[in-house]
Amino acid sequence: MPQLGLLHGRAWAVLFGQLRRPPGAVCIRAVHSHSQGTRDLSPQQVVVREKILDMVVSCFKRHGAKGLDTPAFELKETLTEKYGEDSGLIYDLKDQGGELLSLRYDLTVPFARYLAMNKVKKMKRYHVGKVWRRESPTIAQGRYREFCQCDFDIAGQFDPMIPDAECLKIMCEILSGLQLGDFLIKVNDRRILDGIFAVCGVPESKFHAICSSVDKLDKMSWKDVRHEMVAKKGLAAEIADRIGDYVQCHGGVSLVKQMFQDPRLSQNKQALEGLGDLKLLFEYLTLFGIAEKISFDLSLARGLDYYTGVIYEAVLLQTPAHAEEEPLNVGSVAAGGRYDGLVGMFDPKGHNVPCVGLSIGVERIFSIVEQRMKTFGEKIRTTETQVFVATPQKNFLQERLKLIAELWDAGIKAELMYKNNPKLLTQLHYCENMGIPLVVIIGEQELKEGVIMLRSVASREEVAITRENLVAEIQKRLSES
Amino acid sequence: MPQLGLLHGRAWAVLFGQLRRPPGAVCIRAVHSHSQGTRDLSPQQVVVREKILDMVVSCFKRHGAKGLDTPAFELKETLTEKYGEDSGLIYDLKDQGGELLSLRYDLTVPFARYLAMNKVKKMKRYHVGKVWRRESPTIAQGRYREFCQCDFDIAGQFDPMIPDAECLKIMCEILSGLQLGDFLIKVNDRRILDGIFAVCGVPESKFHAICSSVDKLDKMSWKDVRHEMVAKKGLAAEIADRIGDYVQCHGGVSLVKQMFQDPRLSQNKQALEGLGDLKLLFEYLTLFGIAEKISFDLSLARGLDYYTGVIYEAVLLQTPAHAEEEPLNVGSVAAGGRYDGLVGMFDPKGHNVPCVGLSIGVERIFSIVEQRMKTFGEKIRTTETQVFVATPQKNFLQERLKLIAELWDAGIKAELMYKNNPKLLTQLHYCENMGIPLVVIIGEQELKEGVIMLRSVASREEVAITRENLVAEIQKRLSES
Repeated sequence: MPQLGLLHGRAWAVLFGQLRRPPGAVCIRAVHSHSQGTRDLSPQQVVVREKILDMVVSCFKRHGAKGLDTPAFELKETLTEKYGEDSGLIYDLKDQGGELLSLRYDLTVPFARYLAMNKVKKMKRYHVGKVWRRESPTIAQGRYREFCQCDFDIAGQFDPMIPDAECLKIMCEILSGLQLGDFLIKVNDRRILDGIFAVCGVPESKFHAICSSVDKLDKMSWKDVRHEMVAKKGLAAEIADRIGDYVQCHGGVSLVKQMFQDPRLSQNKQALEGLGDLKLLFEYLTLFGIAEKISFDLSLARGLDYYTGVIYEAVLLQTPAHAEEEPLNVGSVAAGGRYDGLVGMFDPKGHNVPCVGLSIGVERIFSIVEQRMKTFGEKIRTTETQVFVATPQKNFLQERLKLIAELWDAGIKAELMYKNNPKLLTQLHYCENMGIPLVVIIGEQELKEGVIMLRSVASREEVAITRENLVAEIQKRLSES
Repeated sequence: MPQLGLLHGRAWAVLFGQLRRPPGAVCIRAVHSHSQGTRDLSPQQVVVREKILDMVVSCFKRHGAKGLDTPAFELKETLTEKYGEDSGLIYDLKDQGGELLSLRYDLTVPFARYLAMNKVKKMKRYHVGKVWRRESPTIAQGRYREFCQCDFDIAGQFDPMIPDAECLKIMCEILSGLQLGDFLIKVNDRRILDGIFAVCGVPESKFHAICSSVDKLDKMSWKDVRHEMVAKKGLAAEIADRIGDYVQCHGGVSLVKQMFQDPRLSQNKQALEGLGDLKLLFEYLTLFGIAEKISFDLSLARGLDYYTGVIYEAVLLQTPAHAEEEPLNVGSVAAGGRYDGLVGMFDPKGHNVPCVGLSIGVERIFSIVEQRMKTFGEKIRTTETQVFVATPQKNFLQERLKLIAELWDAGIKAELMYKNNPKLLTQLHYCENMGIPLVVIIGEQELKEGVIMLRSVASREEVAITRENLVAEIQKRLSES
């Protein structure tokens, strides 16, 4: 036999006796992997994901959101200059003629583009969809290059902090509902951060770079962040120290009040606006009964360019798995903020629509739930089949086909074995393995007598049912279980 | 005021008073469109799509399918040489370092790649997902460059035609269930087509080109197709005429029997295999009660390279809209076939897994259902909100927020107006417009007496309910409606 590498086109096809197309259409290389940083979801994973997404979407609907869907790719210029330092992670499509396109990087920018394009001034929408980022994949942390986001946003000119408070309420409802263990939502305001930089003496040209350094405080110590500011970003040491006094603070509403009294910060108009809004926000959060879940954290900066006001990020405080397990480091599981300037960037006249929203990092939540299920050895059904149509008899395919069509037509979820002469034991084992609750068994004797045996897989009890009553009896049993 | 074109970065940001980031991060161009050939789905369209997809997926689950999800892009080589003449329509990603990637063109090739990669020998799976093709968009016909496919496939070595018959049953169930009017499923077999070409004297090198011509018979007359074969593809006129005798035939199982008797075709081994399978298929379709929906159509060719046996395509026979309406030309709404050689192309040793499947062209079905709804002026709710929390009073935001949090926490879908002092009439109008069935009204008097007014939007009846009983009463009313 010749080596595979020497076989070409038709020869290979003939050898394997399967392909019919002419030489050009036959592929000889063996390709058998998905691309790096992406993954297939197995049936088990699809079931877990569906349960989590159902729960998330039902919360969004509970808060009156409408669904929206946008294309996977946008015009390249739509995504340009929205994501700051992370813009290099955008996937571009190849120029094959026509427009220059990029895969969407989040669901927020397409939403803003939709609002501007359709001149929508007010909308509460949710969107569940995939986004793509060319990140170095550290898959252990639940980070992929393709991942699912669940977004909820409120667009429109309203009285301050009411929609913002609802966004935080939604985050609490979802994180509680998914039983991921204790969590905390860090809150800050971009205007307060800018105010801090201003009163500490950061030159305006360095705001962005210094903000990026502050953003690292969840992973690095203040000492290391300070070093970066001074050594790498050329900030004067005393300015860095002043910043340090602020950004190491976190607390509840009392910290908001304390900052109002701060002799330097209280001189800054932007910071005062931010503090005023946070004070109001905490009032509403108290009415919602979630204030104790929220921490005013001056180190929270958020990476994206488009935020203009309140920002927030939810972190899990403990992993729900067994104590002896490695804790799964999942970082933040939900985040968001106010972006009042983004819609205007897509409007020819710059008309703005104020927006606030949140994004649930479901991919990380999938990892946690999957690990929890592994730990507890939970088994999940990957099909919903209710009835299996079996026979102990040879040459009974015709009877089985007629019977299963009746079940399908009655809306009953049913399967059979695609064999002319399957063994009864094989058929019953299949039901046990797949968790199928009922089996109908048809044989020569039953056919003569006009009955079918209905068997419960769990109890192994069998009863004879007349053919006419079978569908009704199955429906009765299923509605009872 | 300077012209927009003269404003740069920060200046523009300052002018519009919204953006906080340094100059580089500010975009001045007004971009406000999605890319050509794609579209956003509005909330109305999302609701319609969800209903259709729910119905399709529940049929797939009724037949015991497991869910599977694969990434939006695959390694470029995975898609190479699978789609024949249409390969030019594949979207490639830009080479930004790393692997060469392409957006998936269908859900079948990723499924085959998954089976080979995971050495899965047997699987019944469904997959609902977007695929991308660089087609000249003729949007009126419901053709887009991004569109949703719903696939069901059965992989594994089974007795002949049982899974194939189930695929046709599924197509019938879905098309009947969606009430799209009368439909017909054309069936043919690639081996019969090849047999016809062989016995008519087509040189093997021209099989592919002639097959493509035959594929056009649903849009072109035989005269024009014949002309293409002879003038453009260099086929001898008498050979074309012999082909014409065959491919203009269509009928039921009797045509299968007739072809068995055909003096030329009955000499061809491949054709005989195909005819034998079709005969068996029609037996099973009769048992399923759907034989009268199926037409053996020798002109059916299907574009894709990977089919090796039975192929099929469902077409609507009439549009369900009003008689005076323009009929919507939607072409085929579902299609599929057997592809026994595809998995082997991804397996290093060429091991094959026989497969058969179908794809529902839901995008076209969306168009039909949307048009039908327009015609009948059907209104659909885009939110599921059950209760609106209103007040006739000024400065009652705190009470409303406390109350709505109670409702949300009880799982009730509720909304309020994001205003400190909304007008009662505005609030009630909103409920009527949005189809929200219940309103709870809280005012000073009610607060004093410890009651809430519960109003039915339809009947405009109001009753006072004590605060403690409100959630229970709402739940009772909602469960009754």
